[in-house]
Amino acid sequence: MAICEGKTLKFSNASILTFASVVGKTEGDGPHGDEFDEVIEDNKGDSDTWEQAEATFQKKALSHAMDKAGLLPEDMDLIFAGDLLNQCTGSSYGLKDFYIPFLGIYGACSTFAEGLLLSAAMVNAGYVDNATAVTSSHFSSAERQYRFPLNYGGVRPPTAQWTATAAGAAIVTSAQKPPYIRAATAGKIQDMGIKDQNNMGAAMAGAAYDTITRHFKHMGTHPESYDAVITGDLGQVGSDMLYELMLRDGIGLKRYHKDCGLMIYDRENQDVHAGGSGCGCSASMMCAHFLKKVQSGEMKRILYVATGALMSPTMVQQGGSIPGIAHAVEICNS
Amino acid sequence: MAICEGKTLKFSNASILTFASVVGKTEGDGPHGDEFDEVIEDNKGDSDTWEQAEATFQKKALSHAMDKAGLLPEDMDLIFAGDLLNQCTGSSYGLKDFYIPFLGIYGACSTFAEGLLLSAAMVNAGYVDNATAVTSSHFSSAERQYRFPLNYGGVRPPTAQWTATAAGAAIVTSAQKPPYIRAATAGKIQDMGIKDQNNMGAAMAGAAYDTITRHFKHMGTHPESYDAVITGDLGQVGSDMLYELMLRDGIGLKRYHKDCGLMIYDRENQDVHAGGSGCGCSASMMCAHFLKKVQSGEMKRILYVATGALMSPTMVQQGGSIPGIAHAVEICNS
Repeated sequence: MAICEGKTLKFSNASILTFASVVGKTEGDGPHGDEFDEVIEDNKGDSDTWEQAEATFQKKALSHAMDKAGLLPEDMDLIFAGDLLNQCTGSSYGLKDFYIPFLGIYGACSTFAEGLLLSAAMVNAGYVDNATAVTSSHFSSAERQYRFPLNYGGVRPPTAQWTATAAGAAIVTSAQKPPYIRAATAGKIQDMGIKDQNNMGAAMAGAAYDTITRHFKHMGTHPESYDAVITGDLGQVGSDMLYELMLRDGIGLKRYHKDCGLMIYDRENQDVHAGGSGCGCSASMMCAHFLKKVQSGEMKRILYVATGALMSPTMVQQGGSIPGIAHAVEICNS
Repeated sequence: MAICEGKTLKFSNASILTFASVVGKTEGDGPHGDEFDEVIEDNKGDSDTWEQAEATFQKKALSHAMDKAGLLPEDMDLIFAGDLLNQCTGSSYGLKDFYIPFLGIYGACSTFAEGLLLSAAMVNAGYVDNATAVTSSHFSSAERQYRFPLNYGGVRPPTAQWTATAAGAAIVTSAQKPPYIRAATAGKIQDMGIKDQNNMGAAMAGAAYDTITRHFKHMGTHPESYDAVITGDLGQVGSDMLYELMLRDGIGLKRYHKDCGLMIYDRENQDVHAGGSGCGCSASMMCAHFLKKVQSGEMKRILYVATGALMSPTMVQQGGSIPGIAHAVEICNS
């Protein structure tokens, strides 16, 4: 399906200085609950509404990352942020009081990888001293915006994913310490013709396949080159489709593959169906889990491929399909 | 209100190779009607719905720009695109069939300037050979998403702006020919406390003031340094507020100021109240009018400041205000 090869961007001068994650109760109860910087038990987070709560989660994630780096708002050069809410209000309301130069991005659940790609590009080129990727998602705000009012109590099919209530932030600088961002490949929009808004994993699998394939080709790598190839949140359905697409090219991905959507919850004991999703899912799992492993050297080289379903309820109501996109960011210990 | 100064990015190797605009009938009937590349009389543009029409407008704008440059989809390295629709579907649906690496951006009506800033940054740093900024807006899709169903026939107050049905695309390369993108300043989110979704100009004026002031300071320039300081679409209300804010600092902007929202329509004879707005408004006016003037040398140096109201109907319904943002891009003949 690919016409354009695109380019893989390479960086020699971009490293993630600090990173932080803030999650809700369900995520805190999950298998990685003790790895997040903060767990907010009340899903309104002391705000009046879920949308305002999502903004608060994002604000807190950024604050934690800045605190760890000892940076004040006036030290911050640039933020790339976006989220799942219409008009990305989690970002605009959550970050407006910092008064930091802000470039809004939209990539649905691929947002954090897009933010890391752009942050690394801007720092590596020397345009700014630091650039920060921030994103969030919230189960309650997303569910009512994309599907049904929560009070309606709609039954979720087994393919449905659970939007994570979570936020992540990562500050990229030219500090010569791991984790380093060494390369990144921007995704192309791929339309698999999926029209079921409860089957986002399938809508994103083709995009993940395309981006991973191009990244491998440009870098001369294969699954074995990495400690892990981490997708954002394909969930179970999308992960299985991705393995199948890769296998057609003779590439066995499954053994090296981790999916944040499948990791963030205990699917046996938490009622989350096909797994987690939402911009905050992979952002928080990267900031709580994988970046630490690369920092410590336990993992030497990972490929983070955040996948986004560019799903519009309006377009779906008009009979349209759900295009997907995936951006890849290669993160190394040296 | 500013804490963080931010940085102004400077470029020595970024020029706009080709650019194109596509507009609807009302815009075609306006004073610049003969400058656009294509006027589509039917506001559904042969599509079934307004949202699909907006996607078509964006597709056509990009196609025109690519045709002028003689570039095929496989030659295109990167697109930055976004629009006013929820989930930026004008971009994802309009551009998906090109299979070009795509980074989604969201800045409401500041989108085109954000796209130009990022395109110039990526090309100037040598990451890609070309990068393209694309955006659109559509009166009918925006009005029903942000305000009322059109059939409802709501009366628009005098402060209301008219969302332009328009799209623009500009391809940035390192070709050494004008118009050159020489510098850019990313905006900071500014919240003026405006809660009236029919008074977007006021919501954006503070952001325009902040960005212009920082850009002038970093570049050592003032209004007289430019042939024109062009705001996206403050309209009449927002423009007057901007003059007043600048005057407090002793800077007389009015004489050098042009507002795309005030130019695109004939406000005497077209019923558009405070002027035009929408991502496509300044994008189409830049591509139809100003970039040509810089290319020909009639204008030597312009500052394009696209302003965006990050307005969320959900947040406004919850009593929230409308934050604004503005990004500045300096475009020169030499």
